[in-house]
Amino acid sequence: MALFKSLRQKLGPENVVSEAVVRDIRFPTSLEAHGSDAVHTDPDYSAAYVELRVSGLEAVGHGHTFTLGRGTEVVVSAVNALLPLVVGRPLLGILTDFAGFWRGLTNESQLRWLGPEKGVTHLALSAIINSLWDVWGKIEQKPVWKLLADMTPEETVSLIDFRYISDAVSKEEALVILREKFPTRGEREERARREGYPLYTTSVGWLGYSDDKIRELCSRALGEGITQFKMKVGVNVEDDARRAQVIRDQIGWERSLMMDANQRWDTDEALAHMTRLAKFKPVWIEEPTSPDDILAHAKIRQALRKFGIGVATGEHAHNRVMFKQFLQAEAMDFCQIDACRLGGVNELVAVVIMAAKFGVPVCPHAGGVGLCEYVQHLAFFDFICVSGTKDGRVVEFVDHLHEHFVEPVTVKGGCYWLPGRPGYSGEMLPQSLDEHEYPHGAVWKTILESKPSS
Amino acid sequence: MALFKSLRQKLGPENVVSEAVVRDIRFPTSLEAHGSDAVHTDPDYSAAYVELRVSGLEAVGHGHTFTLGRGTEVVVSAVNALLPLVVGRPLLGILTDFAGFWRGLTNESQLRWLGPEKGVTHLALSAIINSLWDVWGKIEQKPVWKLLADMTPEETVSLIDFRYISDAVSKEEALVILREKFPTRGEREERARREGYPLYTTSVGWLGYSDDKIRELCSRALGEGITQFKMKVGVNVEDDARRAQVIRDQIGWERSLMMDANQRWDTDEALAHMTRLAKFKPVWIEEPTSPDDILAHAKIRQALRKFGIGVATGEHAHNRVMFKQFLQAEAMDFCQIDACRLGGVNELVAVVIMAAKFGVPVCPHAGGVGLCEYVQHLAFFDFICVSGTKDGRVVEFVDHLHEHFVEPVTVKGGCYWLPGRPGYSGEMLPQSLDEHEYPHGAVWKTILESKPSS
Repeated sequence: MALFKSLRQKLGPENVVSEAVVRDIRFPTSLEAHGSDAVHTDPDYSAAYVELRVSGLEAVGHGHTFTLGRGTEVVVSAVNALLPLVVGRPLLGILTDFAGFWRGLTNESQLRWLGPEKGVTHLALSAIINSLWDVWGKIEQKPVWKLLADMTPEETVSLIDFRYISDAVSKEEALVILREKFPTRGEREERARREGYPLYTTSVGWLGYSDDKIRELCSRALGEGITQFKMKVGVNVEDDARRAQVIRDQIGWERSLMMDANQRWDTDEALAHMTRLAKFKPVWIEEPTSPDDILAHAKIRQALRKFGIGVATGEHAHNRVMFKQFLQAEAMDFCQIDACRLGGVNELVAVVIMAAKFGVPVCPHAGGVGLCEYVQHLAFFDFICVSGTKDGRVVEFVDHLHEHFVEPVTVKGGCYWLPGRPGYSGEMLPQSLDEHEYPHGAVWKTILESKPSS
Repeated sequence: MALFKSLRQKLGPENVVSEAVVRDIRFPTSLEAHGSDAVHTDPDYSAAYVELRVSGLEAVGHGHTFTLGRGTEVVVSAVNALLPLVVGRPLLGILTDFAGFWRGLTNESQLRWLGPEKGVTHLALSAIINSLWDVWGKIEQKPVWKLLADMTPEETVSLIDFRYISDAVSKEEALVILREKFPTRGEREERARREGYPLYTTSVGWLGYSDDKIRELCSRALGEGITQFKMKVGVNVEDDARRAQVIRDQIGWERSLMMDANQRWDTDEALAHMTRLAKFKPVWIEEPTSPDDILAHAKIRQALRKFGIGVATGEHAHNRVMFKQFLQAEAMDFCQIDACRLGGVNELVAVVIMAAKFGVPVCPHAGGVGLCEYVQHLAFFDFICVSGTKDGRVVEFVDHLHEHFVEPVTVKGGCYWLPGRPGYSGEMLPQSLDEHEYPHGAVWKTILESKPSS
């Protein structure tokens, strides 16, 4: 086992997780209507942000989960509830039995009642798991995509808790899928370096933007070589049609347009609205209804097939069991994994493998703060190790808040480009963290002092 | 509208929610292995407990959500995140547009990211909504079941947010269901007073109990007139078979035995274990696998039909959208609503009506702390106003912690009996609250001081 062997040379029983702290970091994005959609009208992109230290190591693991502002303190509280299961444990034991460790956290006998594996506790888990992947990458001096690409199939499946998904993909089936692409990984890694990974932009289509701003943003994106665009829909179908026309006028008909309803509709409303919007030829409608509603997504997908409109969902699918059912029920055309909603890289690897088995392309959700930085690793992993193709696949890109990261994403010519620094790319700059810590960082002090208390 | 008219006479714009506090209340039940099952091995039955005050009113609303100990502080934090949406609002406006108010809390534009409508935030919502029903009952001087029984069908549907369930039951269909039973409510209320509502006991079958203790508890329960029994299974099939034999030897074969696996299995394991245990003629297998796995439950249900074993689930189904799908997919034979996992009475009313439409009996989950006190109201509501029958229906009963309530459940002859005091029966005694507040109440001070710090 190549990677584990290397780990065993670098880590011993003395390297225990010695400290992990979690911080409440918020960016006041709502002040400029960035990120506004049909249900999230005023997001302050935020993070419950973990810094994890290991005794005897210089490397610090940074990991976060993405939130929308209010309530970040609840996730911070959940991280603190989980940390006693992490601190004091030898890192080598965690990483070489990662599935077992992961299950231990999701199944803590008292905490699991609060989920299990969903909502606040699962978001909190994600921050912790992400920080462990970050420190692993730093120990090996590799970005996380490269860690994954250098694992043997056996090492990869050792990451996954197969409980509740064995009826869709067993450990043996996962090994078959990984082994098939194993001999040719090198070629695709080379292609990834040369070609990058295609992206689409959501920055042009937030609900809160004026038509002029949409035009300007489309034109700028076209200038940057971007060929795929997403707009928000769902509040008012006539307004959606008008904005779709503005975008189509700018981008033409050869380029791709996606639509995102952010869970706004019931099934019948979804069908009515998308029938009205079909003439703008969207590639997909994203989150047409409740993210929990597998059967409704299947019905909507069936009904929209005649228009050539696919159904995309997943950013709110709360665990691998939900993804499994969306795949089994033929309820999704595009599988939108989210790097922070699922329980970290381990569960994402499971979903990427399941999607490959069911032949559904993975098109990661991104945006927010740090989601782009994370999901690029997973998209490249999918290409190099699992699906072996970029066909019909595209990663969301939103151009906000990257300046706060030590290694922001590299985006050019409509593509993401391979990150090169060791770790998971989610480390924020110390100054950004200090200034945006809620509520005492400088940015929030200024905002809160200028607001009348409510 | 009979009940709303009465409310309007009692409440004015001056009666605003003036204060709401939430407390962390824990009972050290793990010390005696009460409540131990295949995945919850050491529960400390606990509550995030809300006390809600309304200016100009003496009545105080008490409401809680049930937790298992560790992590209760996370739910407390979520309640505090939601309370700014409650405090300061006129109570009359809340209660007469209860569905709108409810949606406002589940869809708060930043907080909804943490769910939506699942896990910690939904548990927290439940505590708040329960406290509002309690104060409503106290204002009307009626127990909650009687509030519900005295509503017109129009008032009842005004409680429900139909978003995401309109494809299964529309407001109009709900009205039809309620109106059908409306003229005969009086007869059934009379029968409820005379006959009570049948219960089954789980107290005999926890995993942590010895065979002798099981025998003793069975014999005591039989003496009390109990005819339906549930045992925990899932860790070791031979051990389960032995314990099932012990119970069958005590209770005979005419009485009912249920089995509960608490999510322990994958689909194939569930089928293998239940094939082995089928000879003990269980009425149902409860939570055979992941509570999120609608499709797996449907498959297990199909496969076990030949043994006459039904599938029961719901205590972890996190919202009405999940219940809707379990019903649509024919994945449950018994619908086990939980008074604290769903978002309070409003969402429970929606599920009870959906279950009636699909012809699936509601058999509420109870136990924990205060769940029996709550669900009896919903079972009686189901009988009087919705399904109109008790056939094939039974409410869980666990005989723990009732002594901490102002109005503990009345249980006799294998039945629950109608609660009579105004409110929702979830109010705990002041001394119980003070002693069990975590970590500074007297009970916890003693326990924590005697433990070596870990």
